[in-house]
Amino acid sequence: MRLASYRHGQREAWGIITEDEKVLDCSAVAPTLKAAIEQNQLSNLTPSSTELALSEVTLLPPILHPEKIICIGVNYANRNAEYRDNSNEAAYPSVFMRTPDSLTGHNNPLIRPPESQQLDYEGEIVLVIGQGGRRIRQADAYQHIAGLTIMNEGTLRDWVRHAKFNVTQGKNFVHSGSLGPWMVTADQFNPQVYENMTVTTRVNGEVRQHDTTANIIFPFAYIIHYLSTFYLLKPGDIIATGTPNGAGARFDPPRYLIPGDIVEVEVAGVGTLRNGIADESI
Amino acid sequence: MRLASYRHGQREAWGIITEDEKVLDCSAVAPTLKAAIEQNQLSNLTPSSTELALSEVTLLPPILHPEKIICIGVNYANRNAEYRDNSNEAAYPSVFMRTPDSLTGHNNPLIRPPESQQLDYEGEIVLVIGQGGRRIRQADAYQHIAGLTIMNEGTLRDWVRHAKFNVTQGKNFVHSGSLGPWMVTADQFNPQVYENMTVTTRVNGEVRQHDTTANIIFPFAYIIHYLSTFYLLKPGDIIATGTPNGAGARFDPPRYLIPGDIVEVEVAGVGTLRNGIADESI
Repeated sequence: MRLASYRHGQREAWGIITEDEKVLDCSAVAPTLKAAIEQNQLSNLTPSSTELALSEVTLLPPILHPEKIICIGVNYANRNAEYRDNSNEAAYPSVFMRTPDSLTGHNNPLIRPPESQQLDYEGEIVLVIGQGGRRIRQADAYQHIAGLTIMNEGTLRDWVRHAKFNVTQGKNFVHSGSLGPWMVTADQFNPQVYENMTVTTRVNGEVRQHDTTANIIFPFAYIIHYLSTFYLLKPGDIIATGTPNGAGARFDPPRYLIPGDIVEVEVAGVGTLRNGIADESI
Repeated sequence: MRLASYRHGQREAWGIITEDEKVLDCSAVAPTLKAAIEQNQLSNLTPSSTELALSEVTLLPPILHPEKIICIGVNYANRNAEYRDNSNEAAYPSVFMRTPDSLTGHNNPLIRPPESQQLDYEGEIVLVIGQGGRRIRQADAYQHIAGLTIMNEGTLRDWVRHAKFNVTQGKNFVHSGSLGPWMVTADQFNPQVYENMTVTTRVNGEVRQHDTTANIIFPFAYIIHYLSTFYLLKPGDIIATGTPNGAGARFDPPRYLIPGDIVEVEVAGVGTLRNGIADESI
């Protein structure tokens, strides 16, 4: 089942996106998709009778106000090599956070601010937490996934390096990244799928990133276990699981995003998140 | 005016703490202090007629669900020297984020989790954002402060160093830090005060940190300006402005917090945030 948050005219709603691209409004079940996850209602959704075409709505990030948007840094094994600093693979994941404002929805432009010419893409598979918890065992971790979505974990490369530690600045410009187009519920995946999912990023149709979770250093179950050691994970929390090699900054010369570019992040079994690029008007 | 969020019996409320330690309930004005800030109602508060004694309520973090809890890293000039890595002062602040769950209220214990014996204090002056904004000029920055409060930016030192970059893990254990006891509204300060405020941290009565904002590298007005370059600041957002030298990790041998310790962070003109330490029961 594909569940999306969307705007139709002035109204914000959420619902089911069917195979034939109809939108079935579920807002009567719970006010938001996040609330429906909190109330454990995803297995029993009764949409209203009104149907819209997908083309009639503006998709929003599927979870609009998550308490936490947690991002895992370098996680694909060959990406660590890409840094060429002769460091060994890390013992633990690198973790940082983004704010909801830093992410726009499917088909909305990523915003290049006047402060930087180094807007870069990072295609990532995203876990949406269902049942929350603390100190979740790896063996139980998959039971805490409500569904999967996709992030373009867009980054202003020069602002990532403003400080000796912590990449926060370059990860939090308003609408520098995106989330969507929808969440595919966890019942569509079996555990083996999580361990060999492909993520592909294309810029103007050219493949820039392509890898599979068979190559990740910290698998999904470990990430949930590790993060829940310190965080109390909650329904609707967002976990971006890291990006493959091939970001624009890694080319020589770097290939940053510019207005007119189209970036697509495709995750097999989830969908394709597509965004243009626009310069910010201030 | 001192404004606090509190629990009385099963009820959560917020209101004014008077000079003689009465609690005047303002929950009829807006459901939360954050909502009152959003609605710009702080200058016109009409409490209900019921009065409680401060000793009858449990103080909570004054802003219970801020969208953002933003922390500034090394900011006191002599603290950078304390790192002894011969680095020059940073060109920009180091920035990381905490989640609301990582902070408890005044008089509640900070929690030492079983995963670490290195719970440490960091006393900090905290700005609470009033009117939000983006790209706020330094000259206008003080107008965006709703009030000041205090954070014990409690840290699990070994978990701060789990990754090459990003201190997130060691800054986000549940209830490893605290916020409060209340927010003092900005009308109690003139701009000169912001530029020479003292912060003092005591453990069991012994002064461990003591410094003034006259020594900070990045003043409050610059911090608001800088953060609002990438973040859209919003009413109720929390900005912890960095800690002086003298954290427990800097002693040889280190002096970490243990159950039985009492930590007080005092900010002149704001108050004293006091917490005990407890081992987590799991």
